[in-house]
Amino acid sequence: MSDLTRFSINQMTVKQLTLPELVAACRDLGVPAVGLWREPVQEYGVDATAKLVRDAGLAVTTLCRGGFLTAVDPEERAAALADNRRAVDEAATLGTDTLVLVSGGLPPGTKDLRAARERIADALTELAPYAEDHGVKLAIEPLHPMFASDRCVVSTLTQALDLAERFPAHQVGVTVDTYHIWWDDTAPEAIARAGAQHRIHTFQLADWITPLPEGVLNGRGQIGDGAIDMREWQGYVEAAGYTGSIEVELFNEELWARDGRELLAETARRWAENVDV
Amino acid sequence: MSDLTRFSINQMTVKQLTLPELVAACRDLGVPAVGLWREPVQEYGVDATAKLVRDAGLAVTTLCRGGFLTAVDPEERAAALADNRRAVDEAATLGTDTLVLVSGGLPPGTKDLRAARERIADALTELAPYAEDHGVKLAIEPLHPMFASDRCVVSTLTQALDLAERFPAHQVGVTVDTYHIWWDDTAPEAIARAGAQHRIHTFQLADWITPLPEGVLNGRGQIGDGAIDMREWQGYVEAAGYTGSIEVELFNEELWARDGRELLAETARRWAENVDV
Repeated sequence: MSDLTRFSINQMTVKQLTLPELVAACRDLGVPAVGLWREPVQEYGVDATAKLVRDAGLAVTTLCRGGFLTAVDPEERAAALADNRRAVDEAATLGTDTLVLVSGGLPPGTKDLRAARERIADALTELAPYAEDHGVKLAIEPLHPMFASDRCVVSTLTQALDLAERFPAHQVGVTVDTYHIWWDDTAPEAIARAGAQHRIHTFQLADWITPLPEGVLNGRGQIGDGAIDMREWQGYVEAAGYTGSIEVELFNEELWARDGRELLAETARRWAENVDV
Repeated sequence: MSDLTRFSINQMTVKQLTLPELVAACRDLGVPAVGLWREPVQEYGVDATAKLVRDAGLAVTTLCRGGFLTAVDPEERAAALADNRRAVDEAATLGTDTLVLVSGGLPPGTKDLRAARERIADALTELAPYAEDHGVKLAIEPLHPMFASDRCVVSTLTQALDLAERFPAHQVGVTVDTYHIWWDDTAPEAIARAGAQHRIHTFQLADWITPLPEGVLNGRGQIGDGAIDMREWQGYVEAAGYTGSIEVELFNEELWARDGRELLAETARRWAENVDV
């Protein structure tokens, strides 16, 4: 059997499984860690989820996700900050030290990416110390540029690092996700920079397949099915000093239509075939 | 009536119009220039098209497109080079000095973007002198990173310039298209670099709208409908010394379903509202 010590399954990959089903499947397959999402965790109960994973001996590598910090309207901004504080609280309760942040897109009717990125920095000034007080690190995730207008104005690892570097590394770092950065020939250098500063807070895998579906959100490919050389990217993060979990996070309608337990087994197998452990 | 002196309509924007219909509509609306596409031109006849636009006094700003130069297979590579020489010939016949190049994606089963980009450079070594001999400049077009695997391994203006700079500026430059680079905070600097080297061979506009359609190819927005500040980008290319045409190139199923002449009038109006002339 493959060595799955560094494997983590992001809950969204197998979202057809309930939390108890996910935990049971992880136990049966020898999967040691999960990345969780706020919505299903809230539905099951944050404390109940914490107990469930703790009793099963599962590590929680990340909580997805905070962020959406680009609002101009003061009330919206205050609501976003309050929601992010709750996300920090939830991460602490779940026993993970990493909260993934997806920045948010352009507010309706605006066209200024630079100003939107600056509002994220402002918000982090309030959030980062709060996270530190709760033992949680924020991991800014650059999303693929195709999400720049409606989901995440932070499109490259360099942009994410430029934001993160305004704060101590134990407060704010980055998420390195192959799906979002594989096309970027400046990303390897940014990974080296992030590693030298101890800011690689999580490393996630998804493969790039085409054609992209309408809306492009749920088109991530199973590991090994697409254009991305996973070992190449693993090489970059490890050369930069990263030794943590390697999490698989897929959003894919076809995969979600399949049996969740079988999909988890396939994902673990594909992971082991495509990374060096 | 607006000053359309610097307006050019890319044929693909109003592909529901036949070439004679396009030329007549341009004449009636005072549109002084067109960007042409090889397939409809070949269908109508290259010489016949050249005569049609010449007799109407229309300038041809660009021919789209050559490229697709990433093949590994020697026969495929030779065929691509031969096809690109024909594209150069067609550009010369049509009276345009600019052939837009879309590089091509990853050959099936390969994952090495760097090697694919290097094969483009190799191909340009053969093509660029041929183009110069025919009075044609090659304009490498970086496409949005969402096309990196299946259409164009050149994803940023910086990558395009890194390729172009291996050749004299009158042989190889770049296409600056707002749709592909608007998210990139390093693009303004790359535009300045391109301008200083006289490598901005064409400047094209399309707006960014969401949700993207399946396959993402035909989701470009009408000027003014989306997230891109056209004046900002016009400012960058003009600060870099660009004084040429500003061409509108949209691919959009909804726009194509409309009356072509009415769409051309709307596009000219939107252009005039969103750029400084």
